[in-house]
Amino acid sequence: MIYIAVMGYGTVGSGVAEVFYKNRESIQRKIGNKPMDIKYILDLRDFPDSPYADKFTKDFNVIANDPDIDVVAEVMGGLEPAFTYTKTCLEHGKSVVTSNKELVAARGAELLEIARRNNVNFFFEASVGGGIPIIRPLHSSLAANEIDEIAGILNGTTNFILTKMIKEQMGFDDALALAQKLGYAERNPSADVDGHDACRKICILASLSFGRHIYPEFIHTEGIRSVTLEDVAYAENWGGVIKLIGRAKRVSEDGGKIYAMVSPAFISHDSQLSSVDDVFNGILVRGDATGDVVFYGKGAGKLPTASAVIADIVDAVKATSTSKSLQWKDDGKNHVLDYKQQSSSFYLRMQGSIDCVQKAKEIFGEIKLLHRPGQPNDEFAFVAPCMTETAMDEKSAQLQQIGCRQLAMLRVLDY
Amino acid sequence: MIYIAVMGYGTVGSGVAEVFYKNRESIQRKIGNKPMDIKYILDLRDFPDSPYADKFTKDFNVIANDPDIDVVAEVMGGLEPAFTYTKTCLEHGKSVVTSNKELVAARGAELLEIARRNNVNFFFEASVGGGIPIIRPLHSSLAANEIDEIAGILNGTTNFILTKMIKEQMGFDDALALAQKLGYAERNPSADVDGHDACRKICILASLSFGRHIYPEFIHTEGIRSVTLEDVAYAENWGGVIKLIGRAKRVSEDGGKIYAMVSPAFISHDSQLSSVDDVFNGILVRGDATGDVVFYGKGAGKLPTASAVIADIVDAVKATSTSKSLQWKDDGKNHVLDYKQQSSSFYLRMQGSIDCVQKAKEIFGEIKLLHRPGQPNDEFAFVAPCMTETAMDEKSAQLQQIGCRQLAMLRVLDY
Repeated sequence: MIYIAVMGYGTVGSGVAEVFYKNRESIQRKIGNKPMDIKYILDLRDFPDSPYADKFTKDFNVIANDPDIDVVAEVMGGLEPAFTYTKTCLEHGKSVVTSNKELVAARGAELLEIARRNNVNFFFEASVGGGIPIIRPLHSSLAANEIDEIAGILNGTTNFILTKMIKEQMGFDDALALAQKLGYAERNPSADVDGHDACRKICILASLSFGRHIYPEFIHTEGIRSVTLEDVAYAENWGGVIKLIGRAKRVSEDGGKIYAMVSPAFISHDSQLSSVDDVFNGILVRGDATGDVVFYGKGAGKLPTASAVIADIVDAVKATSTSKSLQWKDDGKNHVLDYKQQSSSFYLRMQGSIDCVQKAKEIFGEIKLLHRPGQPNDEFAFVAPCMTETAMDEKSAQLQQIGCRQLAMLRVLDY
Repeated sequence: MIYIAVMGYGTVGSGVAEVFYKNRESIQRKIGNKPMDIKYILDLRDFPDSPYADKFTKDFNVIANDPDIDVVAEVMGGLEPAFTYTKTCLEHGKSVVTSNKELVAARGAELLEIARRNNVNFFFEASVGGGIPIIRPLHSSLAANEIDEIAGILNGTTNFILTKMIKEQMGFDDALALAQKLGYAERNPSADVDGHDACRKICILASLSFGRHIYPEFIHTEGIRSVTLEDVAYAENWGGVIKLIGRAKRVSEDGGKIYAMVSPAFISHDSQLSSVDDVFNGILVRGDATGDVVFYGKGAGKLPTASAVIADIVDAVKATSTSKSLQWKDDGKNHVLDYKQQSSSFYLRMQGSIDCVQKAKEIFGEIKLLHRPGQPNDEFAFVAPCMTETAMDEKSAQLQQIGCRQLAMLRVLDY
């Protein structure tokens, strides 16, 4: 019998139990018809009415010290005690699978190394993109590629809010309130709307793709609080939508230095990412051989995330050698270049006289003026050609010196 | 040293060599820094100017009998001698990876069983969706799901033709001629435009998802030759586009009986598949836990397909136990239910008087009339509610009895 333990009985943990028992037969078929069961569920709370009441324990050491346990699913979230528990399990020769993006983004390289040393697996498919297969395809199916770039709609909550703003002209505050009412957003929505969640996920994808641990604190991160319906209207006039995009790009072949950023951005209607709506996620991977590949699906939720956790459990049981190749280096250094050096096109919305428009053309060169219904006489918006963030700042400052006021600035991306 | 052999030096084979040598270092890193090289390339033609001239052989037995060869890439295409060569390699203890959809659709179950018996791998990621990771995610990342349904735009040539018809109002013949000129379509385009290529691919996906070998000859297959610009215009009025969709659906839990079909169909603009344009492919997988997951990318082409072949080589070298679980049964029986029992909504375009419209409402119930620019007085088109193919045939026959003529019929799908 193969025994697994589930640490944490929140949304994901209860989903793991539900999906496991629902599809147990076909899951067992995937591991060569070996019998498998959940032996423990770790949670400090009591669940006397749960169908799995006899499996609950409040003592982590019961799991760590039980040699029967082959695989542990860490679905508690947060850094501690998740890190200590995960480390202990790996050191006790148990594979660990996790949905905990905070843990992987902060300590992934370290835990992978501990897993390697102990000849067990540390998998984290569920940490990015919920039920969308992305970690394994990135590592394995796209193995023949040099991954040049990754960009994704990685946070369902902000995508839901932006979709309501785009499709129903709902203001940010109302859309956020609705997301909270529907359970898509926390009461304190900062992790989502300020971009931190998306930042952790792009860090994991970048670390995996570029072979170096990329720390969230080094990535310039902007959320969607300042996006307005005016910006949404100008984006529509331009031919696209505003999406919160986490992205990372290889700059040099050798050093592993990368550009990375999380921010709302204009995305053309021609892009596959533009039609990723509501709570769905979409992740674009640009490989040198495959070109663009896009993965789409539910980026969160009980059952999709549980399904990714269980897929990792199945892989861990099959004892593949993946853990040996699933590695990235961590030298504690910052491999992300200053975002001010990054280049893109820019959308600017300004307040100013008609003279400002003429001046903007002189300063920015070939700009594309945008229009929206109800546009005030003293408002103008345009898309400026590709330049660095620094150059954009300087040019915008020049424009502001002659009395224009910058109301909004967003990047225009070509995914 | 790990040695591989490449059988066939056509588009895919030369791509395999190109991608392998370009990204050799990172590929070797993925297999634990073991050195790897291509030892033989099998082709009956001479390539004296190739950088790999010293590797060519015309004698298959050189490969089969060389114990140095660990993995063989079969990228010749066609059933024979591909089948005999693949079987022989597996029996000689060599893993085989292939891009050959014809081979997998016809003999996949048999070759997987031979691989299992010989404790080697038989992989075929490149046989469906070119560079899009789909076989491995379906087998591995979605392992916790019962796959209920798969639907895809699986053929780039027909998707290019339909895109030209939709976006540029080019007629079928002109669009086909352009596809041929650009090298997207063969001089004899039947395998593509008549749906046979898409049929083989949906068979592979269905066999993998439902655990039984699904033979192409049992799947009702319609191509796109009869799709007209009139139908394209009505689809637009309805709120969608016409796409060639290969699909398979689980009908009963136990028996493994499925519905499957390849045909052009109306797809709503709301669907992720609707924006899959040009030569791109998109594959939707509907799992009980994940919900809908969509994979998008280049479905063909030298480098994308080569990249999938090499990913399989890497996996085969890593000697995972995948081959043991990557299996489906083949009892030689037909597991596809008569397509006449399948249900969907239908689009009908008819020629007839205004009386016919009234009659259509009586016969079909709640129909949605469609309109197009330049619509003749005696033409009408509508979408009828969900019913079986048989019921649709009967109702259409009733309508034709009173003097209407059916000009076109397409399914309306809800992917």
